[in-house]
Amino acid sequence: MARWQPDAPGRLAAAALDLFEEHGYENTTVAEIAERAGLTKSTFFRYFPDKREVLFDGGTVTGVLVEGIASAPPAAGPLDAVAHALDALGRTFFTANRREFSGRRQAVLNANRELREREALKRLDLTASMNEALDRRGVPRLTARVAAELGTLVWEIAYDQWIDTDNSEDFGPLARQALAEVRAAGVVR
Amino acid sequence: MARWQPDAPGRLAAAALDLFEEHGYENTTVAEIAERAGLTKSTFFRYFPDKREVLFDGGTVTGVLVEGIASAPPAAGPLDAVAHALDALGRTFFTANRREFSGRRQAVLNANRELREREALKRLDLTASMNEALDRRGVPRLTARVAAELGTLVWEIAYDQWIDTDNSEDFGPLARQALAEVRAAGVVR
Repeated sequence: MARWQPDAPGRLAAAALDLFEEHGYENTTVAEIAERAGLTKSTFFRYFPDKREVLFDGGTVTGVLVEGIASAPPAAGPLDAVAHALDALGRTFFTANRREFSGRRQAVLNANRELREREALKRLDLTASMNEALDRRGVPRLTARVAAELGTLVWEIAYDQWIDTDNSEDFGPLARQALAEVRAAGVVR
Repeated sequence: MARWQPDAPGRLAAAALDLFEEHGYENTTVAEIAERAGLTKSTFFRYFPDKREVLFDGGTVTGVLVEGIASAPPAAGPLDAVAHALDALGRTFFTANRREFSGRRQAVLNANRELREREALKRLDLTASMNEALDRRGVPRLTARVAAELGTLVWEIAYDQWIDTDNSEDFGPLARQALAEVRAAGVVR
């Protein structure tokens, strides 16, 4: 029986990122990732279904956003509930110690079509999860769908700014700022 | 030298859809698709880089939308320019004779993760292309980004309704209706 490995997924992701940067995504095997992390291939597959998945967080971001929307004050409108969730994400997950890894990870994703496809599907899943969380708050169906779409856009704008090394602001304030700008863009009129 | 084949991409897509329905996407080879279409494997690869791509339109939808945004009346606001483009799409591409194929195609895409990933990336590409087309109209940067995101959502809502066999409305009016509803949802407030 394999022993429990402290933060095995994190070690596998860090090892994978190193190897993808050194040799390219295509030229790196799951066995090499596991070896670099000091783990076995079967441990890898306990946490990730395939190589593509190793740089994704297994649903943590989605979970934080869904929980953040659910726990927003009852009177909050749909975009305010999304803002509440983005704040929670900045406090618990997109923290300062994750910024450098996130920027390197994004560069690797951008360079590989397979990874960009997986990322694109994750983005759709994120939108769908926020949409469902807003539905559960009683937000009208189409309003929830639009708010989830705009929430995803705000998340994306803030994330791109947050991983930019010229920038030192925290994720939460960046998301608040992006949301205010999206609101001010007033495109629906 | 291979002869020119009338509508080779259309024949390949139709053959692929038949085979994916009969045997599943995973169990169908490019050679089988080409054979069913009465063409060669090398003809397949002249039109599509890989098997995943055969059910996508090679950029036709994107091209029609970009051209439609560019040719909208100068005074049209960003979402009105998008509406103009969606009308053009309904007139030239999502026409009645394509509806049944589109519905069958969507069922195949929904059933396969690889195809859903490719579709998700195409959706991002579509949004980016509309965003750029709006930029070229002089729409402010963030407004263009929001309008492109909402335009993609409207396209998706209208498309899902259009391929629904319980429905007999044309794509253009469905898109106009979805856009009006997205505007009325007024979520930005």
